[in-house]
Amino acid sequence: MEKSLQELAEQIDATVEGNATVRVVGMATIETAGPTEVTFVANRRYLKHLETTRAGAVILGPGVVCDRLPVLRCADPYLGFAKALRLFHPWVHRATGISPQAGVHPDAQIGAEPSLMAGCHVAAGARIGDRVTLSPGVYVGEGSVIGDDSFLYPNVVVREGVTLGKRCIIQPGAVIGGDGFGYAQDVTGALKIPQIGGVRIGDDVEIGCNTTIDRGALGDTVIGDRVKIDNLVQIAHNVRIGDHTIITAMVGIAGSTEIGVGVAVGGHTAIAGHIHIGDGVSIAAMSGVPGNLDAGKVYAGIPAQEHREWRRVIGTVPRLPAMRKEIAELRKELDALSESLRSKLSDK
Amino acid sequence: MEKSLQELAEQIDATVEGNATVRVVGMATIETAGPTEVTFVANRRYLKHLETTRAGAVILGPGVVCDRLPVLRCADPYLGFAKALRLFHPWVHRATGISPQAGVHPDAQIGAEPSLMAGCHVAAGARIGDRVTLSPGVYVGEGSVIGDDSFLYPNVVVREGVTLGKRCIIQPGAVIGGDGFGYAQDVTGALKIPQIGGVRIGDDVEIGCNTTIDRGALGDTVIGDRVKIDNLVQIAHNVRIGDHTIITAMVGIAGSTEIGVGVAVGGHTAIAGHIHIGDGVSIAAMSGVPGNLDAGKVYAGIPAQEHREWRRVIGTVPRLPAMRKEIAELRKELDALSESLRSKLSDK
Amino acid sequence: MEKSLQELAEQIDATVEGNATVRVVGMATIETAGPTEVTFVANRRYLKHLETTRAGAVILGPGVVCDRLPVLRCADPYLGFAKALRLFHPWVHRATGISPQAGVHPDAQIGAEPSLMAGCHVAAGARIGDRVTLSPGVYVGEGSVIGDDSFLYPNVVVREGVTLGKRCIIQPGAVIGGDGFGYAQDVTGALKIPQIGGVRIGDDVEIGCNTTIDRGALGDTVIGDRVKIDNLVQIAHNVRIGDHTIITAMVGIAGSTEIGVGVAVGGHTAIAGHIHIGDGVSIAAMSGVPGNLDAGKVYAGIPAQEHREWRRVIGTVPRLPAMRKEIAELRKELDALSESLRSKLSDK
Repeated sequence: MEKSLQELAEQIDATVEGNATVRVVGMATIETAGPTEVTFVANRRYLKHLETTRAGAVILGPGVVCDRLPVLRCADPYLGFAKALRLFHPWVHRATGISPQAGVHPDAQIGAEPSLMAGCHVAAGARIGDRVTLSPGVYVGEGSVIGDDSFLYPNVVVREGVTLGKRCIIQPGAVIGGDGFGYAQDVTGALKIPQIGGVRIGDDVEIGCNTTIDRGALGDTVIGDRVKIDNLVQIAHNVRIGDHTIITAMVGIAGSTEIGVGVAVGGHTAIAGHIHIGDGVSIAAMSGVPGNLDAGKVYAGIPAQEHREWRRVIGTVPRLPAMRKEIAELRKELDALSESLRSKLSDK
Repeated sequence: MEKSLQELAEQIDATVEGNATVRVVGMATIETAGPTEVTFVANRRYLKHLETTRAGAVILGPGVVCDRLPVLRCADPYLGFAKALRLFHPWVHRATGISPQAGVHPDAQIGAEPSLMAGCHVAAGARIGDRVTLSPGVYVGEGSVIGDDSFLYPNVVVREGVTLGKRCIIQPGAVIGGDGFGYAQDVTGALKIPQIGGVRIGDDVEIGCNTTIDRGALGDTVIGDRVKIDNLVQIAHNVRIGDHTIITAMVGIAGSTEIGVGVAVGGHTAIAGHIHIGDGVSIAAMSGVPGNLDAGKVYAGIPAQEHREWRRVIGTVPRLPAMRKEIAELRKELDALSESLRSKLSDK
Repeated sequence: MEKSLQELAEQIDATVEGNATVRVVGMATIETAGPTEVTFVANRRYLKHLETTRAGAVILGPGVVCDRLPVLRCADPYLGFAKALRLFHPWVHRATGISPQAGVHPDAQIGAEPSLMAGCHVAAGARIGDRVTLSPGVYVGEGSVIGDDSFLYPNVVVREGVTLGKRCIIQPGAVIGGDGFGYAQDVTGALKIPQIGGVRIGDDVEIGCNTTIDRGALGDTVIGDRVKIDNLVQIAHNVRIGDHTIITAMVGIAGSTEIGVGVAVGGHTAIAGHIHIGDGVSIAAMSGVPGNLDAGKVYAGIPAQEHREWRRVIGTVPRLPAMRKEIAELRKELDALSESLRSKLSDK
């Protein structure tokens, strides 16, 4: 797929500075790109490579000077890079049909142009939309629904009673619809509470490798449209996640918590159960969130505080030993001063 | 499955207040329940919905007033809810036989009324108990034993030399018997130590999605009866976990640590290796446990302290910048006072 | 496999103290070993069992006295134990051929002496080396390469464009080559950036159960030779890990970070993206690493500091409430002293 810089610029909302007739065939990093490849700089730390890159062109944001090679200038160079890469690597559905080694129950419904590969399993009553790919080792349980144009990578498990929207991408090993972790304390020990809810997942959702999303106890666990979830994330029963929210790897969200629209959660963060995270909240990596968070604010820390306050606190932490020493000295000097005064004043 | 409130009350150890002949068919949340459904309130924050719920009856604990609808009154409403839900959704084994697409080694033993589904694999010498379900993608290794009435969800891996008790439930993607992480430092680098122990798991154990339980190096990793383990938990080689212990999602327990009976570990907590956690200990979410913990106590924090002390410490943390400022002011004022005194006293 | 102590000692670089003709058949823990088994003590806390063990011999380091049973004396008893255990449990490849139930694409290349088991899948263009084991449920994607003598446990997923070296061991459920978590912000929300890089993994690498290693966005994610990675670890796109590095369970490494040679990372640690960790760094468990770390140093804490400093800080934390109280008292006393002086001095 060869393009002139002019063609490419038009497709990614950029303008060409330099020779717009240069032809390119793909994209590469600034250190490895060759003369028929386009690269980009979206992070200041890579600017230095502009002087040595062998790329055929570079996507740059406003104000970044570069005379050595043609520039594709656009408002957001990272978005320009994303659009260009999608042009060179478009998502194409390859309909391979239903493999004779796929285990499809006769009562399952399969849509048009399927790719149901050897070693996938579809249970009774499941409904698979059009142009869906079920890779080897994928399991879709009874009555579950997979929306049109969704792609399930190998060994994904979708248990019964789960609804997945359109154009979803589920990375390998993810588990959707496992039982929530619910027990009541009986005289003989923990009594399992049947988890009879399901999971409802919106359109254009991506779920990372080996991530786990539990089914609801009563009622469903709900993931909104365009939500993106990274690898090894745990989402407990009856959690509700608003549209456009982004959850980075190794985050855990405990039961019945509600996450707003457009929230961003940094990696390795733990969020307590039965709380509410407002729309547009940002939470830094490795935070611990014990209670509600207000919409639109930025939080960090264990326990999570507003980011500005947390920065002041965390800046103090390395000074704790010095603070402790200073307190001890103040005590000593104050006692000495008191004592000396008492004796001096009592002299009179 | 229709029941009168009178029948239901007898089965869950409750008494009916109101019309005991009302007939119900299932359970639902207080916000969604209709006239033929029972709901419950076990958490104060849902009490307000008692005034608007359309449920046919509500399970309540002692002292909670409700005149609008029939009440099933019991000592522990959450336990009452659990029992009622189990009545409406009993665990029923459906014996589907051994699928022709199941890969069962001729030297494996299979019990009565099996459900060995297409795409499961049972290696030589494995023994599968009565009424066991092995879902698609399940693997049971050489010589491993699966107890009666256990249910393994899709893509569970049980490697060789693992013993699983009766009535265990293993959620999708869990791995039991992976190699422990053991190396000795040789001149050429890390030398792998063969992990020749196994895993022994008791009766009525539940293991969450994508959780990993490693086999022992020498000797076994041991999980007691009625232990409940959530999703994405890591249990290292030669860990021993006592009966009735509950481990929430994303907890990691390092090698050779011994956890007592009836311990509760909150999510995202890390527990060091070669330590001992006493019986009945509770550990809050997102704690870090570097050493032994005393039986019966409640711990929290990184590093874990007794919960009461930790609360005082964590309450101080947000005040650190103010403390630092106050120390600087004390220093300034004390120096000024000393200086002024020195001059004044030396005047005389 | 029976050996005299003399034979065993020669093979593990030890010397025998006591009866070198004693014959042994295996190894066991010091508490469980019988007269035909060898045990070891590498950790002081097990020394007490020397007085009661029934083992036929014990591997000990320099200076540890033991008269009750034959001793295999060596410089590093843990290494001696590892070597002895490897002798009794050698890694042996069992070539079982290509199962008729293995799904091998006709355009895949399979090496000599394969063990491709029922229910594994090998896509077009994949190249499988000699003496490779692909267990049930393993998936190897298009064009991926598995080096000689590598062993993939059940349900491992290796997506397309991944290269795995020789003698690698991949524990069950690990996922190599999932998409990196990369999105650009478009007017309509997060726009997925195609992840067109691969993963390159060196020789003698071990990867733990349900660990996830993402493919690069542009360019590859790279894991060096002899790297050992524990369970449930997340390695993001374009991370580079140097040879001999050891990463314990539940560590997360964010995108494009570079880890040096011979680094050791403790469990549950989170490492930020786009940073550099120098050669030989050690990071304690449950640390949070926001920035570069200098080669050869030991770090701990959230945020990570040099271990020595961190110990002083963490030692201060439990004293925070007392420090706060002392500051308040200092304030009170200083104010009282000032006041009393002001009045006394003004008297004159």
